[in-house]
Amino acid sequence: MTNTQLTLVQIDNYGPWTVTPEPRREMDLQTLQSRLFADLAQFVGHRGGYAFFTRFDNMVAVTNGLDLDDHRLLQESTGNRYPVTVSLGIGVDPNPAVALERATEGLQGAGSAQDGDRREVLSGTPVTEPSGDDVSIAHFDVNDATEKYTDQLNEFDSFIQIEQGYAALMRYLREEHGGLSFFVGGDNIIAVTPDMAVADYRAAIDHVEETVGVDLKVGVGQGEHAHAAGMAAKHALEECRHHGTAVELGGAAGEVESE
Amino acid sequence: MTNTQLTLVQIDNYGPWTVTPEPRREMDLQTLQSRLFADLAQFVGHRGGYAFFTRFDNMVAVTNGLDLDDHRLLQESTGNRYPVTVSLGIGVDPNPAVALERATEGLQGAGSAQDGDRREVLSGTPVTEPSGDDVSIAHFDVNDATEKYTDQLNEFDSFIQIEQGYAALMRYLREEHGGLSFFVGGDNIIAVTPDMAVADYRAAIDHVEETVGVDLKVGVGQGEHAHAAGMAAKHALEECRHHGTAVELGGAAGEVESE
Amino acid sequence: MTNTQLTLVQIDNYGPWTVTPEPRREMDLQTLQSRLFADLAQFVGHRGGYAFFTRFDNMVAVTNGLDLDDHRLLQESTGNRYPVTVSLGIGVDPNPAVALERATEGLQGAGSAQDGDRREVLSGTPVTEPSGDDVSIAHFDVNDATEKYTDQLNEFDSFIQIEQGYAALMRYLREEHGGLSFFVGGDNIIAVTPDMAVADYRAAIDHVEETVGVDLKVGVGQGEHAHAAGMAAKHALEECRHHGTAVELGGAAGEVESE
Amino acid sequence: MTNTQLTLVQIDNYGPWTVTPEPRREMDLQTLQSRLFADLAQFVGHRGGYAFFTRFDNMVAVTNGLDLDDHRLLQESTGNRYPVTVSLGIGVDPNPAVALERATEGLQGAGSAQDGDRREVLSGTPVTEPSGDDVSIAHFDVNDATEKYTDQLNEFDSFIQIEQGYAALMRYLREEHGGLSFFVGGDNIIAVTPDMAVADYRAAIDHVEETVGVDLKVGVGQGEHAHAAGMAAKHALEECRHHGTAVELGGAAGEVESE
Repeated sequence: MTNTQLTLVQIDNYGPWTVTPEPRREMDLQTLQSRLFADLAQFVGHRGGYAFFTRFDNMVAVTNGLDLDDHRLLQESTGNRYPVTVSLGIGVDPNPAVALERATEGLQGAGSAQDGDRREVLSGTPVTEPSGDDVSIAHFDVNDATEKYTDQLNEFDSFIQIEQGYAALMRYLREEHGGLSFFVGGDNIIAVTPDMAVADYRAAIDHVEETVGVDLKVGVGQGEHAHAAGMAAKHALEECRHHGTAVELGGAAGEVESE
Repeated sequence: MTNTQLTLVQIDNYGPWTVTPEPRREMDLQTLQSRLFADLAQFVGHRGGYAFFTRFDNMVAVTNGLDLDDHRLLQESTGNRYPVTVSLGIGVDPNPAVALERATEGLQGAGSAQDGDRREVLSGTPVTEPSGDDVSIAHFDVNDATEKYTDQLNEFDSFIQIEQGYAALMRYLREEHGGLSFFVGGDNIIAVTPDMAVADYRAAIDHVEETVGVDLKVGVGQGEHAHAAGMAAKHALEECRHHGTAVELGGAAGEVESE
Repeated sequence: MTNTQLTLVQIDNYGPWTVTPEPRREMDLQTLQSRLFADLAQFVGHRGGYAFFTRFDNMVAVTNGLDLDDHRLLQESTGNRYPVTVSLGIGVDPNPAVALERATEGLQGAGSAQDGDRREVLSGTPVTEPSGDDVSIAHFDVNDATEKYTDQLNEFDSFIQIEQGYAALMRYLREEHGGLSFFVGGDNIIAVTPDMAVADYRAAIDHVEETVGVDLKVGVGQGEHAHAAGMAAKHALEECRHHGTAVELGGAAGEVESE
Repeated sequence: MTNTQLTLVQIDNYGPWTVTPEPRREMDLQTLQSRLFADLAQFVGHRGGYAFFTRFDNMVAVTNGLDLDDHRLLQESTGNRYPVTVSLGIGVDPNPAVALERATEGLQGAGSAQDGDRREVLSGTPVTEPSGDDVSIAHFDVNDATEKYTDQLNEFDSFIQIEQGYAALMRYLREEHGGLSFFVGGDNIIAVTPDMAVADYRAAIDHVEETVGVDLKVGVGQGEHAHAAGMAAKHALEECRHHGTAVELGGAAGEVESE
């Protein structure tokens, strides 16, 4: 059964900083944000986790395998190298949405995101007894995205299609299952999911097709941490490509169930 | 009158590269993408342009002020420092959507985004006679986003709200005006727009409020290039904050018209 | 007793790459090199190690605490994000120079640094039984460098003074003790040393003063890995500043011996 | 005749910052320094300049082609993205050492490098009438460095050889000609030189060979800015490789004089 550990990474008092003493150059802000995310992705990724840029000033990471010392180190190292600091809230639950709820509450309880005195909060307790199927990752992509969109439409209209698919999927998985979906570039969406059956994924894909006409497929994997689960998911997605299937479930032991 | 120069930055044959010889670590891909975008933001931003990450494998930049030599340098420098190369398509038109259509066609005409032999294409012709109102930038944010969302909801549910607002706005501006909207983090959306009146912006904001219940305000600026226009837009947005208005039009000469 | 684990990080076939098909832009090479080093510093540093840029195409890291899987991950992640790959040779010995000798031999035995077919070699065996004083770090700086040099001389002449001090120290510690000294910026030199007495450090400082007239002080620390040893060394160096002493030995247990 | 424009880039009050409130993690400092240098190399390099890391807290750049607005932009953008700020001093003279003297004096006159109140100084006046031979770049490397050192000695002993060569060359060119030499990685040294004859370069190479036994060759180029001069130098160095010569003078017009 899944036991997802999520960390909310929140830049402290970022909004006010971006306009103090007057609005800063937008491209410097974009650079700062994307490099901070890149560093987070490296830090978390090299410990088996996954990080998502979400809104950039608030980022979400799957941190199964990272303990409190790892979080402290991330916080210290970020503060040493950036003009901003970060607060970290950790939450754990079989259901990803509940885990993030807890992670968020830890920071909200310590003060507002725009409270100038609330800096470098660290709240929450990591998983203490890890098991081999704590994390479930579903890796979606859009069928024939290059042929149907990238090589046919102007880039913004391609992007609108992908965005509509993402918006429909993110709502559906959140509301129906408590799964959290993140756009990761190209035509790829990665979701952190609770235990779900093949039929559940099929229903999600059908929902997106019916509501916005975007045609998805998905590979799913489980593991002790996000990287292991995600790699199983990527391999399962390759199986979809080879077999023309819409859903492939890999898993901790590598067994594959398809539809 | 606006005369927008847009550049489509497309990573050559990226999809296949990410799974060759087998799927690469997702966090390395995320790092590569976000750092490539950061470098693009610095390069374009230091020449007065704006860059948006869009889908990361396809990025869109407002490049008024950058000539062909600048584009060649960007292409050469990227190829020297990354394991991937980029193709660049330039398009110019008073209407941003049409400009991007042209930029995209230049690359599509040279081959597929996943054609292994199509590398480092450079197509299109930059603006030859710049004027002081070539670029119009509209900078939107969400009213009271921190109080209503960030400090109240879990981060994913906050993100869903912002995303719904973005999805509604991006479609509306694209379909009604040919404006291109990009989420830039936090609760901020930056749109590259054609000439639009205060009433047009008001209608866009009303549309988003009515369809998804997200409450926006916007500052608009014009200039010879994106940075000048964007800075005027940021200052106009500060005016919205101070005056409680929903739309403020700055402009090249700094005059402000509000509603 | 020290038991230093050193890793030689060598960019594969780098020289030929920099001039193929013709010489690449020097500032792109400088950027590539310094960012690769920065990533190495983050990777190694977050695991308790120290990395030094040395010649950039060959870098030296103190990697006590990093196992073979860590090295494989570094190698894979670098290859995923850079246009070049790295080979890694690990060596262990109480004497740092001998450890590096072994680390180097592992790579040399696998082929030339400019052999196009020799890529991503991983050789050597990490420490298997760590102890609390495996690593000794000596952190030197120049007395009154800002007052005597930076605020008085032109920057190059300041730099020459620092360089002369560094060149004298690096040779002395290498020849007399097998210690390896690295310039780390400003007026700072960090040496990886074997067990040495206060008198040995005093003699090194005297040698530098006598031969090139540069006046050093040093804090020394020991620990299970470089970061712990280096932090003890930094604190010992602060003691030198407060007490006006030339040598302060901190140590694993924090006891301080001064002269 | 050369007319070198040099900029001293000095991190404001850096030393005290690195130990406030207590010593910061060394690898974070190394990362910060090398990334700041990488950004400087990109900024300056994309405008035709060259940047050298020198001591990292003080960096030297050849900035012919960059005006005051470029310098202001560099300063603003750095301050927006780093936890430190930089002061910039510009100096111009036919002789590089004199140019740097002036660049340095501008900052020294504004206060100490460790004066907490002296931030973001910008001093000096860029070249107003550029000509095609304002910058002279000499690119040295070590003959057979891979065969004689990298593939034979342990990495530190290779490095000692290169360092000795560098230390001898830097002093000689500084004292005899006012040329400024910078180690740029591998076995490469780049010098910013005044007008010098082939015999002068030959004498420098002979001096290094006689004093420390390191065998150099050099390609020299001139241009309106450092990149053009440096590329001519790199091509001239390739000529040395092909012809077995020790000195090759390329030049603005591409004519080559060899010895």
